Amino acid sequence: MNSQRSGGRRGRSAKRQSNAKKQFDLAWRQWRNPYPPIEQFSADEIEAIHEATLKVLRDIGIKVLSDEAREHYVRAGMRAGEEGVIYFDPDLVMELIAKAPSEFTMMGRGEGRDVMIGSNKVGISTSAGSPNCSDIQRGRRPGTLQDFEDFCRVAQSFDVIHLFGPVVEPQDIQMNIRHLKMARAIATLTEKVPFVYFRGRQAVADSYEILRIANGLTPDQLLETPVCYSVANSNSPLQLDDLMCKGIIDAANAGQMMILTPFTLAGAMAPVTIPGALVMQNAEALAGLCLSQIVKPGAKVCYGSFTSNVDMKSGAPAFGTPEYVKAAFASGQLARRYGLPLRSSGPTASNAPDAQAAYESQMSLWGALMGGANLVLHGAGWLEGGLTISAEKFIIDVEVLQMFAEIFKPLEVNEATLGLEAIADVGHGGHFFGTQHTLDRFETAFYSPLLSDWDNFENWTDRGSADATTRASKIFKETLQNFEAPALEASRLDEIDDYITRRIAEGGADIEV
Amino acid sequence: MNSQRSGGRRGRSAKRQSNAKKQFDLAWRQWRNPYPPIEQFSADEIEAIHEATLKVLRDIGIKVLSDEAREHYVRAGMRAGEEGVIYFDPDLVMELIAKAPSEFTMMGRGEGRDVMIGSNKVGISTSAGSPNCSDIQRGRRPGTLQDFEDFCRVAQSFDVIHLFGPVVEPQDIQMNIRHLKMARAIATLTEKVPFVYFRGRQAVADSYEILRIANGLTPDQLLETPVCYSVANSNSPLQLDDLMCKGIIDAANAGQMMILTPFTLAGAMAPVTIPGALVMQNAEALAGLCLSQIVKPGAKVCYGSFTSNVDMKSGAPAFGTPEYVKAAFASGQLARRYGLPLRSSGPTASNAPDAQAAYESQMSLWGALMGGANLVLHGAGWLEGGLTISAEKFIIDVEVLQMFAEIFKPLEVNEATLGLEAIADVGHGGHFFGTQHTLDRFETAFYSPLLSDWDNFENWTDRGSADATTRASKIFKETLQNFEAPALEASRLDEIDDYITRRIAEGGADIEV
Repeated sequence: MNSQRSGGRRGRSAKRQSNAKKQFDLAWRQWRNPYPPIEQFSADEIEAIHEATLKVLRDIGIKVLSDEAREHYVRAGMRAGEEGVIYFDPDLVMELIAKAPSEFTMMGRGEGRDVMIGSNKVGISTSAGSPNCSDIQRGRRPGTLQDFEDFCRVAQSFDVIHLFGPVVEPQDIQMNIRHLKMARAIATLTEKVPFVYFRGRQAVADSYEILRIANGLTPDQLLETPVCYSVANSNSPLQLDDLMCKGIIDAANAGQMMILTPFTLAGAMAPVTIPGALVMQNAEALAGLCLSQIVKPGAKVCYGSFTSNVDMKSGAPAFGTPEYVKAAFASGQLARRYGLPLRSSGPTASNAPDAQAAYESQMSLWGALMGGANLVLHGAGWLEGGLTISAEKFIIDVEVLQMFAEIFKPLEVNEATLGLEAIADVGHGGHFFGTQHTLDRFETAFYSPLLSDWDNFENWTDRGSADATTRASKIFKETLQNFEAPALEASRLDEIDDYITRRIAEGGADIEV
Repeated sequence: MNSQRSGGRRGRSAKRQSNAKKQFDLAWRQWRNPYPPIEQFSADEIEAIHEATLKVLRDIGIKVLSDEAREHYVRAGMRAGEEGVIYFDPDLVMELIAKAPSEFTMMGRGEGRDVMIGSNKVGISTSAGSPNCSDIQRGRRPGTLQDFEDFCRVAQSFDVIHLFGPVVEPQDIQMNIRHLKMARAIATLTEKVPFVYFRGRQAVADSYEILRIANGLTPDQLLETPVCYSVANSNSPLQLDDLMCKGIIDAANAGQMMILTPFTLAGAMAPVTIPGALVMQNAEALAGLCLSQIVKPGAKVCYGSFTSNVDMKSGAPAFGTPEYVKAAFASGQLARRYGLPLRSSGPTASNAPDAQAAYESQMSLWGALMGGANLVLHGAGWLEGGLTISAEKFIIDVEVLQMFAEIFKPLEVNEATLGLEAIADVGHGGHFFGTQHTLDRFETAFYSPLLSDWDNFENWTDRGSADATTRASKIFKETLQNFEAPALEASRLDEIDDYITRRIAEGGADIEV
């Protein structure tokens, strides 16, 4: 897709390219996971979860709190029961799910910014939806548009971030026009594939229109080109509310990507057993994904997994737990069972950007990536189970993501890399620092860290003994200072601004949350 | 092995058992990795590394700085060249390596303390060999015997630590008697399978004798029962020094376990390419392991992998890097190629027990464990590339290890865990907190953390906003306060003390380092 578009942009952005410190590394922008996924369950066990899921859908059903969605389901052949419950025919569920594509490309704004989802391809998004943001100087505070824009800038600056989530809620902007301000910030400050909230039909339509203009697409082209993604959360257990149903229908009709993510916390909204929680996740995901395929067969969707557990002493949600990791591995097996791309996440329950935040998020990330996730949401910045996005945590996460991007690069084994000549030259004792084999490769041989400090203790102490969190704070600020906005054609920006001015004059949108 | 021994001990330790907070979880003491290992290379690529290794051994050879070892090699059929170089016959190498067992059990002192190594069995050791130790109150300081003993106590207190490494060098004890003081601390304060340094023949013999007494074995039984382990580091590139050769020979003769670990830092003592560094690791490991098998066919050994890379800007060693992870995956393939148990590690280059320490060590650990490691050294406490053992890092690592122990527990899929009845009972909306399905399982359903704080931000702030490192400090101190020494028969302790008194009177041992 980009091969056609990039020609024009390449000319326009020549100045920016020449200013850039270095050419981007395509392997950081477009991840390919070279490892076969880790499997939690045997094929028989996955079939048992699958069969139990179909029984839940057939016998217990899903309560669908939308007349329009229920009509869609019934039209497709499902049975409506009392109190809004829809009972699902198992064969029909499988027929509908089979219509969803297993792979697709989302259009990003800029060279190498398209995001391929499915198979061994992986996209990473920022954290999303936090009411608060924090940094170690100012502490935790309600989010503002300024914060939202700053995270747009920092997300744009790192190539291992492929999609942009609504990092923090700009609480200083009134609800009816908030989505317009957010869409403008996204269109002007990032090239990453952005998220659109399901907060009512007008707001969704506004966001799609602004992104259509920003991407230079005609309305017909937009129908075939996903330029953004949304998450529909089922109301576990076994409910789909009106707002999410509308969003699912609107996204399918608009040709935009939708992830159905049940919020199945084992022990709270889902059974206390991981297989039981997975049955519930699976039932809710398939039910919601069916609606997409009824509305528009072939609609681009992701299977969303977010199964974790609560602390049984307090009821508090926990993330990056051993149970979370196992559920992530298993979710990959389920998504592949249905030929669907998998969405997973990188969350933590830590209240600070500290060692706990680092080890819990990395547990989540290994579970997600080695489970075969194609889309990792909340990949950078998340703290406190999502209640805060942290500047320092964002940088810590970017470092870990860059490490994963490098792990995913294959290693070539050939005469040159086996290095027998160099080994013979150096012989016994000595070192390889000065050999031609080393000199030819040393600049690119190894990952060079963003945040990690590998200096010795004495030098590190002389420089002030800054820990990783303190260093991350500095990197976040420097990234903001060095930010250069991506190119956006003046005519598109004018069109976006005209649209937003008109919509604000009309009173914005009726927002539902 | 323990089934016979534990009868008597169970009686003696009844009081201790009743005081214990809870019975130990056998799955924490004896790890089984349920996942097939992640593979870095294709079978052909592994064969290419193997073939290149045999060429290095045949054509370049290993410089062996020990007359005794060279005689062993020549006696077995290898060819001695000039300047101490031994050239290896490839067929003979493979014959000798085939004599090493792929699985064995090490005897621990106490119920459930035996450590099985090989296949899918995994043992975890503490950090080892640091000259310094640190905690956040007192900072970094040279290690003392008191510090060594404190780490013995803390290592004993956590079931996910299976082996004890020489955590920190007791620099306040003179060298000639240091090994005696260390062995006594180990015998009285821990039941974990300990490490013995190769620091000269007398010191090795002293250590073996003290551990023989502590374990209640006859000299003949010791020959068949590994009660400790040692690491022989080759002097990369392609050298084996006199001290290590003596240690390899002595361990094989004594029936004690030996790990041959090349210190192959890509770009420094090994080629800058990972396949090249692996060829060197492989050549040095096979050469040293051959010596064990010549001295005593069937000697219990581990294939040691420690390949990492340096920072090419400064030459500083780096750990937990993307290259480290890939080398760890590949090392598992090589060890399995030879039917040998694999030793790997959990290191970091961080100078502080911070987020970097957490994410680098966890990268190392995922590489090690998913690469199929059977023995993870430096699993708890390591900082600064090994120059310091940190109290707080030790606790952070224990938390992560406990999480891995829980990840490794299989999940059963059956009617009860699928939970269809509970799902039907709760229906649409509502929650699972009060269901019988939850009540029956909530106490053991999920891992309950040691260090992680899952409380909400407000409560966490009210309690003083302690970050993970601060909390780890408190846990380390509480663990020391609550320590109860494991049982050791009075007669054994007397025998150990008599031995040590005599050996000190004799002037201790001639130490080489």
